[in-house]
Amino acid sequence: MNKIRVGVLGATGAVGQRFAQLVADHPYFDLQVLAASVRSAGKSYREATNWILTDPMPESLADMTVQPMSTDLNCPYLFSALPTEQAKEWESKLAGAGYGIFSNAGAHRMDEDVPLLIPEVNPDHLQLLEVQRAKRGWSEGFIVTNPNCTSIPVTMALAPLHAKYGVESAITTSMQAASGAGYPGVPSLDLLDNLLPFVAESEEVKMGSEPNKMLGSLTNGKVEQAGITISAHCNRVPVTDGHTVTVSAKFRQKISLDEILETWQTWRPLPQQLDLPWAPQPPLVVRSEQNRPQPRLDRDEGRGMAAVIGRLRPCEVLDVRFVCLAHNTIRGAAGGSVLNAELMYSQGMLGNGSRE
Amino acid sequence: MNKIRVGVLGATGAVGQRFAQLVADHPYFDLQVLAASVRSAGKSYREATNWILTDPMPESLADMTVQPMSTDLNCPYLFSALPTEQAKEWESKLAGAGYGIFSNAGAHRMDEDVPLLIPEVNPDHLQLLEVQRAKRGWSEGFIVTNPNCTSIPVTMALAPLHAKYGVESAITTSMQAASGAGYPGVPSLDLLDNLLPFVAESEEVKMGSEPNKMLGSLTNGKVEQAGITISAHCNRVPVTDGHTVTVSAKFRQKISLDEILETWQTWRPLPQQLDLPWAPQPPLVVRSEQNRPQPRLDRDEGRGMAAVIGRLRPCEVLDVRFVCLAHNTIRGAAGGSVLNAELMYSQGMLGNGSRE
Amino acid sequence: MNKIRVGVLGATGAVGQRFAQLVADHPYFDLQVLAASVRSAGKSYREATNWILTDPMPESLADMTVQPMSTDLNCPYLFSALPTEQAKEWESKLAGAGYGIFSNAGAHRMDEDVPLLIPEVNPDHLQLLEVQRAKRGWSEGFIVTNPNCTSIPVTMALAPLHAKYGVESAITTSMQAASGAGYPGVPSLDLLDNLLPFVAESEEVKMGSEPNKMLGSLTNGKVEQAGITISAHCNRVPVTDGHTVTVSAKFRQKISLDEILETWQTWRPLPQQLDLPWAPQPPLVVRSEQNRPQPRLDRDEGRGMAAVIGRLRPCEVLDVRFVCLAHNTIRGAAGGSVLNAELMYSQGMLGNGSRE
Amino acid sequence: MNKIRVGVLGATGAVGQRFAQLVADHPYFDLQVLAASVRSAGKSYREATNWILTDPMPESLADMTVQPMSTDLNCPYLFSALPTEQAKEWESKLAGAGYGIFSNAGAHRMDEDVPLLIPEVNPDHLQLLEVQRAKRGWSEGFIVTNPNCTSIPVTMALAPLHAKYGVESAITTSMQAASGAGYPGVPSLDLLDNLLPFVAESEEVKMGSEPNKMLGSLTNGKVEQAGITISAHCNRVPVTDGHTVTVSAKFRQKISLDEILETWQTWRPLPQQLDLPWAPQPPLVVRSEQNRPQPRLDRDEGRGMAAVIGRLRPCEVLDVRFVCLAHNTIRGAAGGSVLNAELMYSQGMLGNGSRE
Repeated sequence: MNKIRVGVLGATGAVGQRFAQLVADHPYFDLQVLAASVRSAGKSYREATNWILTDPMPESLADMTVQPMSTDLNCPYLFSALPTEQAKEWESKLAGAGYGIFSNAGAHRMDEDVPLLIPEVNPDHLQLLEVQRAKRGWSEGFIVTNPNCTSIPVTMALAPLHAKYGVESAITTSMQAASGAGYPGVPSLDLLDNLLPFVAESEEVKMGSEPNKMLGSLTNGKVEQAGITISAHCNRVPVTDGHTVTVSAKFRQKISLDEILETWQTWRPLPQQLDLPWAPQPPLVVRSEQNRPQPRLDRDEGRGMAAVIGRLRPCEVLDVRFVCLAHNTIRGAAGGSVLNAELMYSQGMLGNGSRE
Repeated sequence: MNKIRVGVLGATGAVGQRFAQLVADHPYFDLQVLAASVRSAGKSYREATNWILTDPMPESLADMTVQPMSTDLNCPYLFSALPTEQAKEWESKLAGAGYGIFSNAGAHRMDEDVPLLIPEVNPDHLQLLEVQRAKRGWSEGFIVTNPNCTSIPVTMALAPLHAKYGVESAITTSMQAASGAGYPGVPSLDLLDNLLPFVAESEEVKMGSEPNKMLGSLTNGKVEQAGITISAHCNRVPVTDGHTVTVSAKFRQKISLDEILETWQTWRPLPQQLDLPWAPQPPLVVRSEQNRPQPRLDRDEGRGMAAVIGRLRPCEVLDVRFVCLAHNTIRGAAGGSVLNAELMYSQGMLGNGSRE
Repeated sequence: MNKIRVGVLGATGAVGQRFAQLVADHPYFDLQVLAASVRSAGKSYREATNWILTDPMPESLADMTVQPMSTDLNCPYLFSALPTEQAKEWESKLAGAGYGIFSNAGAHRMDEDVPLLIPEVNPDHLQLLEVQRAKRGWSEGFIVTNPNCTSIPVTMALAPLHAKYGVESAITTSMQAASGAGYPGVPSLDLLDNLLPFVAESEEVKMGSEPNKMLGSLTNGKVEQAGITISAHCNRVPVTDGHTVTVSAKFRQKISLDEILETWQTWRPLPQQLDLPWAPQPPLVVRSEQNRPQPRLDRDEGRGMAAVIGRLRPCEVLDVRFVCLAHNTIRGAAGGSVLNAELMYSQGMLGNGSRE
Repeated sequence: MNKIRVGVLGATGAVGQRFAQLVADHPYFDLQVLAASVRSAGKSYREATNWILTDPMPESLADMTVQPMSTDLNCPYLFSALPTEQAKEWESKLAGAGYGIFSNAGAHRMDEDVPLLIPEVNPDHLQLLEVQRAKRGWSEGFIVTNPNCTSIPVTMALAPLHAKYGVESAITTSMQAASGAGYPGVPSLDLLDNLLPFVAESEEVKMGSEPNKMLGSLTNGKVEQAGITISAHCNRVPVTDGHTVTVSAKFRQKISLDEILETWQTWRPLPQQLDLPWAPQPPLVVRSEQNRPQPRLDRDEGRGMAAVIGRLRPCEVLDVRFVCLAHNTIRGAAGGSVLNAELMYSQGMLGNGSRE
């Protein structure tokens, strides 16, 4: 089985490093291109990068030369860790030039014809790519996005429940890790003996809109929003990695705590059935201890790809309360897009791009 | 004006130290008694105490001899920093022996005939003391309690709104400081690069019940619960002092954000009118910055006695969302009881106990 | 007694805020000028400043208009919180224009004719100002500097010992607080579950040179270096405020631990004799507990102006070992220069500048 | 190749968990026994253990039944994670009963006839076992110990230099992680916005004595101490794992920085030559960046078994300065003893005990 050549856009930043790490030794993909800003271009990846991950930089990448952003990159598929503004500039341009883009950027997530994808949740939304190509006049290229790092654990926890019982509304409070802001990101004086009750203008808006798109149903080439009213409080706390979210949720149908637990524990969606390389087995890990999940102990569950859930109990105001957690730079960023690419690969949707 | 002699029960612990600090040089009170367990009794306060507050131990207290717990203490009023089990054993016994007890313990807070008091919120609940004395057959002694440290900022923020518009329900998520668990309290491995989605069995229950008692109305010697449905998520985060709480609330009447702001900013309840020594002026500090309140920057507002509020905005699920914060070991513990005592003093309710 | 008008240069930054706070309500000084970059100029101090101190901004300053840097400021004395580059540009220019400058910047500290001053240690070095004026042709203006924040506790601890016994060499390891790097300063990802074994290129150099200048003797208008060999290891640790330094030191004369303790405890230098407003009483606080000093518990000793020392014991390699600590943004920055100004004021060296 | 049956003493504690994790799936060893206090005995390992490691408990161990401490355990070799007092009671008793003990406890480290072993540093000290057996009258059993977690990085860094040039003296300052104190260990209030300039009475003593034993030479069945004068400052800092130590060292012979670097980088001692399973390749990782090593980024080097060194530069007082770091619960505890056992296994010193 031939590996498919891929590249990383924005390869020197925090999320770019994660992409490089996850794809460096991958059964489907062959990492050939590390692209970044002109400041880094021409240097070796080792020189150009202030490597901030705990595991050392993969040796196979250290001597690769960082390339400048261009529409002439030697691989048909690209993982994008570009900041929003650059994503706006480059992703469409590259897709128009025939590249398939798996993007972590927020730039196109809510575009009507762009799949906002969690392979466990809405794999069928990949059908939007036909609409996308038709509408944008792209022959081979495409853009597929992964959601915001805070949407991930909430959407994964709600997905199997929504399918069965219908979620009506949810109030969420996130306690988000510092790495969500990249590097240098949040000043240490803001997170030593302190927390911030604010993450970014758009963060709470995304928590309201992204789950509704992902949990929505695709009909006639259009995603019908799921209609869940979500109200989010987003906070930054002194944790390196792992976003923890408390959730109170109301359902359209009567549902017992036992049914919820069973639904979570028996959920075995497509990526797990296909046993995709980065699919966590199981996708949802339910902890029974009353003080779990905790970011330091649970974020690496499923190699950072699982959502971990705990403290399910009734909510006096809505119906139920629980806590969920996911690794924000693995499942919540680079890992999410890698799984998106694995899903498309497994469905035979990759491999014949004009850039091949 | 003669000062009234007071003492501190459990004087060597974390909350006991705060009591000692706040009353060491007080215009109404003269700190004469520091009582603690037999292990500490007989030692000087300096020797007996592992002083953990930032400001040094008041010199006037350092050489006082710690006394053992007994019903023979040389002062008519006592601030109780006893742990729950000891509070259960000692507080009634001492009140029966004629002492007035201002307690931070949870032991009697929800007793029907015991005032659970925030002087700004329900000063009239002091009338319960008549019921208490009648029921328990106490002639001079009494027990008055302050609420749980997490209830404080939420109840102070909701109180003036509830009075005008009626609060129907609230969902809260607390991010509580380590000092709330006392010393040694939470192990450092639990709060370095980590948070705990759990505080204690009873914590979320207290958040549901205590505000309802305090916001309830006193009729015929009985508190009628306020009838607010409250659902709480309590978390422990790596912060030394200051509990931050996100709140989504629903009102019985239509209410605008401007009305809420105005209600908060113009609230001037009894302790502020009386200008009691530890009454914060104003009691509620409303911050307009989008990233406030923050525990490190805002917990000392009003010398740790104010509640600080920010981020008022609509809630898509209930009516409004906001964030509130208070210093958990000052307003949320010792300071609360000191203000309770100041209120009673100012009302002429202290000073003629048999222990005088 | 007429107060003397003063101003703060770089008033909106972290150290500038400390200057403003310490001088806002001062018995000698009347804060009239808050100067900063053009970006802030014209705004109110409240608008222009991201206030990061725990105590709220003094009300008296909030509505003052921030002025641009210029040689036309309405006060004869200026506290400089300028960054090095700007200090190089502006401090000489302003001194030449007749202003007396009390600077926290590193720009002129090691200039031969500029006093590097700790009032407890080398008040006589103020005589350098005559040399300075003569050499630079300044009639009224001058520059007086305070040392680097890490030099402070070490120099204060060594000063009385050096005077009596002569210090020959010292090896120091600092554990420096995040606030030493200003705001935004150190990224949180560098200090969550982490420390940095490096502060800045020049930090360890300063630790070697500054104490030698301050402990040097002034003869014939020149400072003769103290000749102490100092080798410094500087580290950044996850602490908000307070630099802790371990010290191993060797003396020229035989000296016992008891003599050292007595020397420290009886040291009562000039600022304490004069009882200057910000002089800590005593200047050195010696703790006997084996686990002190600690930054959170001890940095506020003497309102942040004292050096706190502990763990004195023999050193097997040199002579003695101990730990010392000082508040880096109070004694180690703004407070240092305020005390310098108080010393000059008390000596009648201020008050008749041409800018008066 | 038959695996050898081993067990863990004190299996439920922090270090015991590491032993269990490292040996759960080992090419030489078959983990058959998990022993702990009577409180845990009889429960499954899952039930008995508050698992605090990031990686989940190995599935193969979760259902094993925890056994009580006894001299009747079904395996010939035991890894001891016992606290000092219990180690004193049990280790000799078990060795006398024929068990080979690999101990992390401090109880016997400095016994004349007990090897204090770092396989890279003093593998020949295993010859002490003959003396040990002769002296104690043990036929098959033995005790081999690993050093204190803070001694490890310093001893590994100094070992190849000492062999070539002779180390005369060293002054060290450690910044030690919270996990070094086990769980619950250090209270969070001691390490939030704080550090402790003290670890334990014996910690600085161990830093002086242990390296001298390990770097000493074995002659006539006796270890001759290395004669290095070491003065240690030990501190606890807010880091989960990884002890960082600054070192100033003086040599008996003249030595250049380049020689030191080359010595470190070319060091390939016995465990690396034998390619033992847990031997890090290379044992010393030298970083060239000026801000490394850092605990969060470097502690996992060599799967937590390497020592990481940086910032080599001249020391004005002694000869050179550098910073070194090792993972305190892997290389500095359980991993150290596992490598000791691997060394003995590879030398044919295991496998024929009477307990086999």
